Amino acid sequence: MRGLFITMEGPDGSGKTTQMKKTAEYFIDQGYEVLLTREPGGTLIGEKIREIILDKKHVEMDSITETLLYAASRAQHVAEVIRPAIEEGKIVICDRFVDSSLVYQGFGRNLGLELVEEINKAAVQGIMPDITFLFKLSPHIGIQRKLCQGNGDRLEQEKLDFHDRVFEGYMALEKRYPQRIKGIDASGSIEEIHGEIVQYIEVLLKHRGSI
Amino acid sequence: MRGLFITMEGPDGSGKTTQMKKTAEYFIDQGYEVLLTREPGGTLIGEKIREIILDKKHVEMDSITETLLYAASRAQHVAEVIRPAIEEGKIVICDRFVDSSLVYQGFGRNLGLELVEEINKAAVQGIMPDITFLFKLSPHIGIQRKLCQGNGDRLEQEKLDFHDRVFEGYMALEKRYPQRIKGIDASGSIEEIHGEIVQYIEVLLKHRGSI
Repeated sequence: MRGLFITMEGPDGSGKTTQMKKTAEYFIDQGYEVLLTREPGGTLIGEKIREIILDKKHVEMDSITETLLYAASRAQHVAEVIRPAIEEGKIVICDRFVDSSLVYQGFGRNLGLELVEEINKAAVQGIMPDITFLFKLSPHIGIQRKLCQGNGDRLEQEKLDFHDRVFEGYMALEKRYPQRIKGIDASGSIEEIHGEIVQYIEVLLKHRGSI
Repeated sequence: MRGLFITMEGPDGSGKTTQMKKTAEYFIDQGYEVLLTREPGGTLIGEKIREIILDKKHVEMDSITETLLYAASRAQHVAEVIRPAIEEGKIVICDRFVDSSLVYQGFGRNLGLELVEEINKAAVQGIMPDITFLFKLSPHIGIQRKLCQGNGDRLEQEKLDFHDRVFEGYMALEKRYPQRIKGIDASGSIEEIHGEIVQYIEVLLKHRGSI
């Protein structure tokens, strides 16, 4: 019996990690096997690719190169980790997946949604999340505050613009894929948010039948 | 004035390198600036990607990961080396380019032409060769001989099948893009082949006007 593939999206600090763990506990309590993962997902090849992407010496990196490298890492993660686990009937919960590329490269780096989607269609090899929780939290509260205090520089303004585009990208994806992407108000309490997630999962499980 | 982008394709040992040099001399003699390059094209990022692809420890590498990594390396090569040189009016001659991915991954690895073409459409960023010389030489004469002598093992049969598919791929591309890809009988003499290449280039230059 095919497992379930759940992804968590949204800015860092929005509570994704806490909710991943609570969601895992929810499934474990019901006797499911759970795999918590994140890109590059502990594959040797993915780690090497990540090193290239994050290396500060690589200032010349083209945005399309970056997008293709993220996609390559994702392809390996899918082939080695995610697909086998789903096929073994596990519940796979992944911290960030294809939507992160769509918004960070497609919107943040202004490459456009279509191009990044086309590249990633190959990378995911038909494995798309059954459900994606999008933690909605304006990502630049901190930066905005600095700017208002007059401490912001050009780089911070650029960062702010980048994160604004990422945020708009997430909103656009939520509209585009309402069946799969469920927006979560990240300002709620841990228990409130967990309750909301469990509700969505119960609906999903009901529709799918048992796993 | 925009330069010219020429690529050389075909199996190793088919005489590509010799003809690249002779083609370069032809242009230099006429006062053009020439850039000879090959993937990963001497970019720092491309070299790092190449290390990942060629690392023998990476036995788990998925074919799609491999394709995306080659494409990432190509994107960087285009952005850092090829596009700037063409924009500066240079003659860029490149040993293998997008067609190698189309045939090695699309046909050799059986991923299919469409998938590999889609991935590489993003990588080349609109920079396609003005002309491609395809050196046609049956790639498995040596392997075939071994098999006939009874010295072939399963791996060699696999290699033979792989190179057969690559060869068929090149033939398919030549049919698909007759305007761009010019087949060259690689069994001719160095001077014969050079003469043939020069003829094609003169026709191209005539159609394009001066560079």
